[in-house]
Amino acid sequence: MQQSEGRVPETRDTARLEAFSDGVFAIAMTLLILEIRVPEAAVGGTNRDLGNALVALWPSFLAFAASFGTILTMWTHHHHLCTLVTRVDRRLFLSNGLLLFLVTFVPFPTAVAARYLGCPAARAASIFYCGTFFLLALVYQVLLSAVAREGDVPRSPAAQRTLDAVRRSYQMGPLTYGLAALIAFFSPLGGFLICAVMWVFWSLLDYRNAARDDI
Amino acid sequence: MQQSEGRVPETRDTARLEAFSDGVFAIAMTLLILEIRVPEAAVGGTNRDLGNALVALWPSFLAFAASFGTILTMWTHHHHLCTLVTRVDRRLFLSNGLLLFLVTFVPFPTAVAARYLGCPAARAASIFYCGTFFLLALVYQVLLSAVAREGDVPRSPAAQRTLDAVRRSYQMGPLTYGLAALIAFFSPLGGFLICAVMWVFWSLLDYRNAARDDI
Amino acid sequence: MQQSEGRVPETRDTARLEAFSDGVFAIAMTLLILEIRVPEAAVGGTNRDLGNALVALWPSFLAFAASFGTILTMWTHHHHLCTLVTRVDRRLFLSNGLLLFLVTFVPFPTAVAARYLGCPAARAASIFYCGTFFLLALVYQVLLSAVAREGDVPRSPAAQRTLDAVRRSYQMGPLTYGLAALIAFFSPLGGFLICAVMWVFWSLLDYRNAARDDI
Amino acid sequence: MQQSEGRVPETRDTARLEAFSDGVFAIAMTLLILEIRVPEAAVGGTNRDLGNALVALWPSFLAFAASFGTILTMWTHHHHLCTLVTRVDRRLFLSNGLLLFLVTFVPFPTAVAARYLGCPAARAASIFYCGTFFLLALVYQVLLSAVAREGDVPRSPAAQRTLDAVRRSYQMGPLTYGLAALIAFFSPLGGFLICAVMWVFWSLLDYRNAARDDI
Repeated sequence: MQQSEGRVPETRDTARLEAFSDGVFAIAMTLLILEIRVPEAAVGGTNRDLGNALVALWPSFLAFAASFGTILTMWTHHHHLCTLVTRVDRRLFLSNGLLLFLVTFVPFPTAVAARYLGCPAARAASIFYCGTFFLLALVYQVLLSAVAREGDVPRSPAAQRTLDAVRRSYQMGPLTYGLAALIAFFSPLGGFLICAVMWVFWSLLDYRNAARDDI
Repeated sequence: MQQSEGRVPETRDTARLEAFSDGVFAIAMTLLILEIRVPEAAVGGTNRDLGNALVALWPSFLAFAASFGTILTMWTHHHHLCTLVTRVDRRLFLSNGLLLFLVTFVPFPTAVAARYLGCPAARAASIFYCGTFFLLALVYQVLLSAVAREGDVPRSPAAQRTLDAVRRSYQMGPLTYGLAALIAFFSPLGGFLICAVMWVFWSLLDYRNAARDDI
Repeated sequence: MQQSEGRVPETRDTARLEAFSDGVFAIAMTLLILEIRVPEAAVGGTNRDLGNALVALWPSFLAFAASFGTILTMWTHHHHLCTLVTRVDRRLFLSNGLLLFLVTFVPFPTAVAARYLGCPAARAASIFYCGTFFLLALVYQVLLSAVAREGDVPRSPAAQRTLDAVRRSYQMGPLTYGLAALIAFFSPLGGFLICAVMWVFWSLLDYRNAARDDI
Repeated sequence: MQQSEGRVPETRDTARLEAFSDGVFAIAMTLLILEIRVPEAAVGGTNRDLGNALVALWPSFLAFAASFGTILTMWTHHHHLCTLVTRVDRRLFLSNGLLLFLVTFVPFPTAVAARYLGCPAARAASIFYCGTFFLLALVYQVLLSAVAREGDVPRSPAAQRTLDAVRRSYQMGPLTYGLAALIAFFSPLGGFLICAVMWVFWSLLDYRNAARDDI
């Protein structure tokens, strides 16, 4: 692996890893909708029954929106990271593969949360959901350090600043998701909601960093 | 975010957003077929039974065709919009993300409409379906204005005319889908059919604009 | 539509249509596997029970292989066609959209055939399956004539020969699939098997044309 | 086919085959998660019930990880192979198609293994799973020899070394998976675990080759 990657034109190599990762992100995001099942309870019932059945799906809609938003934000940051990569080495390749593995996994805890948030077993479902994002945040740290280290190549100041901004906003990732998992122990919906809105927060934080840099 | 996007080569940035959006459009369109389930009722029955069971799936086929046509048309227009974009700023990125979110959501109301159009709860199903496209049309307006505003860069007259043509044909979008949702209140199938054929109308309208411009 | 497509750089336009079509082909092919369900009958049973349950899925495996082979062959030919296209006009766009619509539809008749080939209603299932491919073959003819006509641009002799070879091998498409649908009326498995092996024949035929041209 | 492929610009041809294959790999990997179903048993139960139900899904998680890792490794090697291909001939195209067919098939034996590894019929499920990977390894050999032979074009020494390294690490593929299928006859979990970890071994082996070449 190592041996060839240094020799083939690097842009092509990076481009294909990017395209492949994009594909996995896009498919994982789109598959989320398959976990929302058409309610069968109202087939013989009235319009009000169907309306109620749709409203009762709120945990599914919420979980769908939360996971979609998180993966989309993660894709954006991944997209920025890739612009900084000039050479795909083994470490980068493996940590990227591990990230894709967890991204692909996300539809399952999403479906579990959607199914169980309104049930007595909500706590276990919420911990499972938050725990997955905790793992994702950890793996993202590994990917970030792989990107940071792969550059024996000197980086442009602008590229370095982008990388630093992404790293800063992700440093709190494992902490927040770990905290969410803890909170889920006492308040299942609380922990879940933290995961659900974190991606909005990340975007804002990113924005502030960018604004500060512009001064 | 802002900070890096202005610095990396812009064509690459736009190209990756385009490719990612294309992926989501393509997957959402293709997943629609998964909502049509094989009828199990005729497993022990005659050929006539299976024939009848397939014919009884007409709401599924209709909903599949309607959503496929609408997403494909939306992709075409999206595709034209992207040729006008030279720089992906935050506003464009977010409105595009919101559009992809709703496009990804489409298979669910499609399945609800397919399942309930022949049931007593048809009205609720049809309003849900039309309402989703109403939201989509609204978000498309936001995306259009994001594209229109992002160009501090002067645009070529041809590009400006294309943008104007797309905006003109989409201005009636929220109105028509809002009207369809209203009609669905009185005639579920009526409202649904308006959504089902609107994309044909959009194409024709687009065509007329093009023809007029050619004079 | 027309108006912009003549003005944007053409290679980019064609490339994006190609990439989008490729995505739909790839997803439709891959979704076919979801229609093969894990047999539940042998959960409490012996290894022999599971073995028998897997063998009893032969119509599913056959239908999967048949549809996969056909879509892959169709993609190959589509891929060759695209190399001949220099400008995406409305006619080409619409016929390509119609083709993608039917390609996306294929998993459903495939699942119906897989489910019903061993049932009393096999005839209806087989006619439905063959009928879908008959429609696909008709639409392919429309696409071919759209490609043939779009070239006001003079074509290279090699390109013209490729186009002629593809057209020749597809001319018999509607005929053969129509015949398969007729045969399915008398022998459900017979009609189905014709559809299942036709793509092999197409490849061979294509090969012979190529060989002949080489002389 | 042959006739056109030699004439169109080759990089475009190879690039499209690569992109299409990447799409199929990415989709097949991502669809694996759909085979893990949300446990319904704990809907009325306690948090402990849901926890137990999730733990009881270990064969699903293991099968998901095993198949994901294998397809990802296969994609990596495929990705390296493609950098060596300058011309897509018929043999390469067909063997690549056969590989994609089997890659697409993987989610099914994965689901069977996940469902039956804890059942009395585990042996049949494990043999089916190992057998699929045995076939995949065989087809990969065919693809490798197609790549090796397609080069009438002289290859650079570096490219030749990469090809040799990939071939060396894959030569043991059919043997190991065949052995795994045999072991599965006596120890279902044993055979399955060999398949599950083989991709790690491949990566290491690849690494050692690379290290040796660096001397």
